[in-house]
Amino acid sequence: MAGIDPRRWERAQRLARLLLLVGPDGEDLTRRYLDVLFDREPSRTARPQQVLVVGAGIAGMTAALLLARRGHKVTIVEANASRVGGRIKTLRNFQDPAQYAEAGAMRLPDFHPMVLGLVDDLGLKRRLFYNVDVDPKSGNTSGPVPPVVYRGFDGREWRNGPDQPEFEPPKKLFSTWIRTNGQQVRRAAYNDAPSAINAGFEVPEPARQRTANDVVNGALETVRDYYSFIDPATKNRVRKPVPQWIDGWARVIYDFDAYSMWGFLSEVAGLDDATIEAAGTIENLTSRLPLSFLHSFLGRSDINPQATYWEIVGGTDRLTDALKERVLASGDVELVMGQRLIRLEYWHPERDTSRCRHARADGPPVWLETVAEGGIEAMRTFSGERAIVTIPFSSLRHVVVEPLLSYKKRRGIIELHYDFATKVLLEFSRRWWEWTEADWQRELDAIEPGLYDRHQEDPAAALAGGDALGVHPSVDERQIPAAVARLYDAYRATKQPKREADHFFGGGSVTDNPNRFIYYPSHPVPDSPGGVVLASYVWADDAARWDSMDDDERYAFALRGLVALHGERILPFYKSGATQSWLRNPYVFGEAAVFTPWQLTQFHLAIPTPEGPVHFAGEHTSLKHAWIEGALESAVRAALEIDEPARDATAESAS
Amino acid sequence: MAGIDPRRWERAQRLARLLLLVGPDGEDLTRRYLDVLFDREPSRTARPQQVLVVGAGIAGMTAALLLARRGHKVTIVEANASRVGGRIKTLRNFQDPAQYAEAGAMRLPDFHPMVLGLVDDLGLKRRLFYNVDVDPKSGNTSGPVPPVVYRGFDGREWRNGPDQPEFEPPKKLFSTWIRTNGQQVRRAAYNDAPSAINAGFEVPEPARQRTANDVVNGALETVRDYYSFIDPATKNRVRKPVPQWIDGWARVIYDFDAYSMWGFLSEVAGLDDATIEAAGTIENLTSRLPLSFLHSFLGRSDINPQATYWEIVGGTDRLTDALKERVLASGDVELVMGQRLIRLEYWHPERDTSRCRHARADGPPVWLETVAEGGIEAMRTFSGERAIVTIPFSSLRHVVVEPLLSYKKRRGIIELHYDFATKVLLEFSRRWWEWTEADWQRELDAIEPGLYDRHQEDPAAALAGGDALGVHPSVDERQIPAAVARLYDAYRATKQPKREADHFFGGGSVTDNPNRFIYYPSHPVPDSPGGVVLASYVWADDAARWDSMDDDERYAFALRGLVALHGERILPFYKSGATQSWLRNPYVFGEAAVFTPWQLTQFHLAIPTPEGPVHFAGEHTSLKHAWIEGALESAVRAALEIDEPARDATAESAS
Repeated sequence: MAGIDPRRWERAQRLARLLLLVGPDGEDLTRRYLDVLFDREPSRTARPQQVLVVGAGIAGMTAALLLARRGHKVTIVEANASRVGGRIKTLRNFQDPAQYAEAGAMRLPDFHPMVLGLVDDLGLKRRLFYNVDVDPKSGNTSGPVPPVVYRGFDGREWRNGPDQPEFEPPKKLFSTWIRTNGQQVRRAAYNDAPSAINAGFEVPEPARQRTANDVVNGALETVRDYYSFIDPATKNRVRKPVPQWIDGWARVIYDFDAYSMWGFLSEVAGLDDATIEAAGTIENLTSRLPLSFLHSFLGRSDINPQATYWEIVGGTDRLTDALKERVLASGDVELVMGQRLIRLEYWHPERDTSRCRHARADGPPVWLETVAEGGIEAMRTFSGERAIVTIPFSSLRHVVVEPLLSYKKRRGIIELHYDFATKVLLEFSRRWWEWTEADWQRELDAIEPGLYDRHQEDPAAALAGGDALGVHPSVDERQIPAAVARLYDAYRATKQPKREADHFFGGGSVTDNPNRFIYYPSHPVPDSPGGVVLASYVWADDAARWDSMDDDERYAFALRGLVALHGERILPFYKSGATQSWLRNPYVFGEAAVFTPWQLTQFHLAIPTPEGPVHFAGEHTSLKHAWIEGALESAVRAALEIDEPARDATAESAS
Repeated sequence: MAGIDPRRWERAQRLARLLLLVGPDGEDLTRRYLDVLFDREPSRTARPQQVLVVGAGIAGMTAALLLARRGHKVTIVEANASRVGGRIKTLRNFQDPAQYAEAGAMRLPDFHPMVLGLVDDLGLKRRLFYNVDVDPKSGNTSGPVPPVVYRGFDGREWRNGPDQPEFEPPKKLFSTWIRTNGQQVRRAAYNDAPSAINAGFEVPEPARQRTANDVVNGALETVRDYYSFIDPATKNRVRKPVPQWIDGWARVIYDFDAYSMWGFLSEVAGLDDATIEAAGTIENLTSRLPLSFLHSFLGRSDINPQATYWEIVGGTDRLTDALKERVLASGDVELVMGQRLIRLEYWHPERDTSRCRHARADGPPVWLETVAEGGIEAMRTFSGERAIVTIPFSSLRHVVVEPLLSYKKRRGIIELHYDFATKVLLEFSRRWWEWTEADWQRELDAIEPGLYDRHQEDPAAALAGGDALGVHPSVDERQIPAAVARLYDAYRATKQPKREADHFFGGGSVTDNPNRFIYYPSHPVPDSPGGVVLASYVWADDAARWDSMDDDERYAFALRGLVALHGERILPFYKSGATQSWLRNPYVFGEAAVFTPWQLTQFHLAIPTPEGPVHFAGEHTSLKHAWIEGALESAVRAALEIDEPARDATAESAS
């Protein structure tokens, strides 16, 4: 690089500190936030304030709780009439009332201590989420789960319980499928001999002999070298000493924020198109290749086969429901449901407040105007001393704000990219993906004696399309909408060859058909022989390819994609579908903030910054986009901006 | 550049020829296509074939017509039950039955000879479309319009009529608005003194003194120098001699296909963030900054204040309706409506056809399976010797194709980016944007004597939000859905200052509010005192910010954005709204193909290539993405692939 641009370098250094949560004096803010979040006996403030919180997602409710515990009066205003939780949303509208599945957040990585600590603190149960399928007979997960442990960069450790040395995750088997370019193999087979699958992408030698995971990880090593090194003794990557670690991340931002993932893989890593296409397809990079390199780079340390993930027993919405109970129990929080923010006013002595309706120098400094869902009922008005706005910028874009926010904040509201995510979930009366051939024989013959053998001879003839839907005695066919059966019948691909019994537990398959990513439940639901398969989990352009379909069409198409991997014999067990397009959610307009190249440097520093009495929280104000952990960090930060206990104490003693 | 990658350079050369329509022997293919398209007495083929065309958009119908005139039997299968035309779609569901507005294509540039020639050839009337507002009393447009003239790079000229020296476009006034960062000025004022608007974006000196148009054009000059030069005599840009011209474009592709527009402006042109933000906002680049540089670069030579545009009198769908009539009149085309392609089979001796239902070596080589809209009715099957698939790749993604298409074609179907475009159109009973203050006084006082004066004194008090909607005697208020009025009432921003009378004719305003781009009709509709304003025309992320709203909400929000520019006194004239989100169109899943960086080089060469008996047409197979001209070029190309009259004649004489 010919020379360093001092302004960009200064921004990169500040961004690195935001990313790593390094405080002004080098403080480990993660540790501080953990202390604040789990402070069992917070002191009461001497100056209670009226605080308005916009949005009852995890960020809004957490901030409200922290402030209420300190003695502030909080009003939360939520647009949805019937639910809190935002993008934490568990679907429970299946035929089997015991079943549920996640429309939003579904896995909690073990390096996110705030959310895992909160789960434990709220008395919820957690268990392992299997990104990779496992041998359920191995390991030992019946006892207490290990504690949440955070090892700070200051060398100190935070933990919420004793070690559980008995606990042992089950063995990963890699039995799920990769199906690309018309070929289908189990992941373990691909890992052993990647060349057949890679040849389908026309990957040249020598890359053809490498797995997609290897290729991508190899490409990223030079970036990891900026801030970490490989310990010669353990062969593990460890972070450099703190100053070099921070500096290294600043250099990563400085050098690579301008790159898309495609640009990086092509221009920096020097990969050819075919290799990028193969790796992108298998490693879930393709749809986000034009988006920020840093987003996908950070994501790869988040979602990878080596990391441990957790899920909440009973559904992720147990977290937001329990949090809501605690918020309401605090006694100092009013939760107003079904009111959507349409106007935000704040008093600011240095800005042009001439168009304000309410805000005046001598009145409450923050005002909200809201309307009921659909705008049918009358408007409501709320006033307070402070506000925390937690709604996505995609949604805030349509809120009138007076006076104008600072220039760069407005730029972020206009330009911050929100990615799409769409899920199609299919309910089955049996967990056929766990079956052996013997299980298949028993269950198919329960439909009609001899059906198993006939299906083995001619799969298409034995189970003919839409007519086969839900014919197993465990399914009440009348509950399947005729449209789904007819659509499936029309859209199905015939002459599917026989498939061997999947016989796997949890984990996910990947395909280059429109479904792209398929996840199987990590655990059975108690008292239910069935299960819900996440038949399609897609992002960005992969999601746009589904978003104009109506729900029944999505089920039929998703089922077709599933049949391509698993064979037509899964059809008799189909019960129902559910789907979520976050782009089409009226209060989100997207899944989560995902930068396009350069946006991090362009305006992120302005995103979390308060504007007079107005504060900002939510995943998009953190640098853990799309993660609950980011939302929680931001909630603690915003609460501390309004009410710093230490500052309060200092001011107290000075008065 | 350290060294040329010979494979990429070869691809760039081929792409340049596709872009410029240079044939294998250096032939000017535009000229050839014009000759084929307007051949009045085409010979009859000696080998009539049965051809299946998928999609009755402009590409499908044109290809069908060309083939039918040569004596082939053509069946067109169209998914929509009630309309042809695809993304040419004129909305006619306004309160005033005389009114109409374009949901899709709305302007035809004068350098697109095929579409303009087709308009003339079909006997349709065209008139100027005003990208920039004009003085309607100037110019002379009452007589015959000038002919379509194409000056080939071979030096020859194609034209469809005599010059019309009397014809003179009216004078451009640049009276429409720029409203950004809370400041509003007319374009002419901005052009004279850009610094106030630029300061709102915090643009540094010396760029603050330059208009956005100057800044962007200046940045692009180095790229234009690759293939053209400034004639010292005329000061106009002229293309280099043909070999250098082609070579220059190949170098443009080679050097810049990897860039997004943001990347180019930042890294190549060296513009700072604020200057890009200002130029992007005003010049309609912002939402596509992360997309391909080349797309926006090509677009700037398409849409710019200097070019001349045409529109079709009566609506753009007159073109597709007239084409449909001609297609049906040919007698050799069957048009099947309301059948959606769900399966495509073709015979290919070198591919694995084992999963085909129908295609065999001894039968018709192409088969389609279709379902009626919604899948309610039974499937239909069509067979033929050739097929032309014109549907968008975003839609083809869900079609089962057997056997697999070639690898790179499939890659394009999976990855080709489709941009979003959303329009919100608002109907008014009067064309208030054309008014002077005297007109306003007359019309407001017609509501209630003295209203004009009261409004001048206190705009917000005189016309209070939703209650003011449609109160002018020219509007039947009962036709305005209560929801729109209530929503508007809730969402409106009050204390709008008075606005001066717009008094402009045609053209468009730009704002940084969510509406972004606003176009006023270029011409009144006969027998109607009203007009339809394109209140919001947005792309990419700007469109995503609208796409989860329902229609009534869009009208209320779009009206609010319009009121911010024009004042509350427009409300009494509101009649109705209409809207189109192309992402949510079930057969398109997007507006048009728009490459992300690198996709042109990555797979465009494979997109138009036939696969055995299956041919491909549509705008996405051309390099004039989103333009009718590109669809027409592709239609002629595909028709010639199937039936080259010259080849036919040669084969004839050889047999």
